[in-house]
Amino acid sequence: MRIGELSRRTGVPVPTIKYYVREGLLPPGELTSPNQASYGESHERRLRLIRALLDVGGMKVAEIADVLTAIDDRDRPLHKVLGAAADRLGADHDDQADDADTDGASRTARAVVADLVTRRGWRTHESNPAAADLTKALAAMDRLGHSAFTDVLDDYADAAEQVARADLAYVDREVAVEDMVEAVVIGTVLGEAVFNALRRLAHVDASAKRYGTQGQPGTPG
Amino acid sequence: MRIGELSRRTGVPVPTIKYYVREGLLPPGELTSPNQASYGESHERRLRLIRALLDVGGMKVAEIADVLTAIDDRDRPLHKVLGAAADRLGADHDDQADDADTDGASRTARAVVADLVTRRGWRTHESNPAAADLTKALAAMDRLGHSAFTDVLDDYADAAEQVARADLAYVDREVAVEDMVEAVVIGTVLGEAVFNALRRLAHVDASAKRYGTQGQPGTPG
Repeated sequence: MRIGELSRRTGVPVPTIKYYVREGLLPPGELTSPNQASYGESHERRLRLIRALLDVGGMKVAEIADVLTAIDDRDRPLHKVLGAAADRLGADHDDQADDADTDGASRTARAVVADLVTRRGWRTHESNPAAADLTKALAAMDRLGHSAFTDVLDDYADAAEQVARADLAYVDREVAVEDMVEAVVIGTVLGEAVFNALRRLAHVDASAKRYGTQGQPGTPG
Repeated sequence: MRIGELSRRTGVPVPTIKYYVREGLLPPGELTSPNQASYGESHERRLRLIRALLDVGGMKVAEIADVLTAIDDRDRPLHKVLGAAADRLGADHDDQADDADTDGASRTARAVVADLVTRRGWRTHESNPAAADLTKALAAMDRLGHSAFTDVLDDYADAAEQVARADLAYVDREVAVEDMVEAVVIGTVLGEAVFNALRRLAHVDASAKRYGTQGQPGTPG
């Protein structure tokens, strides 16, 4: 199809499509004449993936380029590509370690995370950026006076394991091996957005039930 | 304390502190002379909150300003302030409804979300941005060929309810009423980062157990 048709199908403006090609996010179309390129289904699909990671996942263009490189790397064994893709999906890895990383809250948080990983028997590698992200979040909570939040960490970990099991069962059942890396990226980024939205809905429900009628007699729910 | 001391304690550079004051994120210090202001514990705490929402939560300065307005609004009843704060914490609410919002995937996703809310008996209001975020994420998955992901939605919802219960129990036990709105903001934003990191750790563990040793004999874990 021509670039105009690709734009119409995906809702992505033509100049934006050209920008993604220049940035290496989208492979160029096949030249059918010196001034015209033809795009296929794979371009349409890749474009939808880019938009989902941008619009739903809130990722930056440079982060998406990194993740797509991992997806397109067919020479590495699946297990390693999955790991590389997952590692690129953390919070913000280009952050320099700031001064705060060496304070008491950070040291405590690191110990809490190490304990948790041991207690749950989680197999993970030391450089997993998710462990660093977790440490950073817990240290920030500690600095805000919420060190006791670690008391509910196992409730969170139970829920995280349940979600991870559901994700893996889904991938096992629905996804062909050659699509697995892409599915993991989609599942990680979009699944995160799904869970976060569900958690906020569940919060509204839980606090309406607990505080709503009691604190505000007469208001519905 | 002077601004230099506030900067030292929080690790936030002086010009950045001044920028937050100009943008209304941080109340100005108390003037002790025409050229000097004095800052207190409340400034230090607010500064830590701003940095946590920026660095861990990935929020933008304008979004943080919105949320802080809700936190500081002492005239509204708690229940409404909680709702207003939570509503400002969604994915991206300044987004115009794009063309894609009216396609088949969006209509299907809206029906799936309405069904889910009814099935779970969740009390929520129609304008809750979390429902829109959920719809957007599910529609994006559908467009990428993952409409079957809705099969695991109840596993996700179970986990979300478990986390919401843990959050409420924590707030009930640990947080004074006057700090509750702030705690909800911290819990929503930082709790999200905590859960997302845990889910990624649980993924690595689950896929190491399922694919690792089997697909890659000889590699540890």
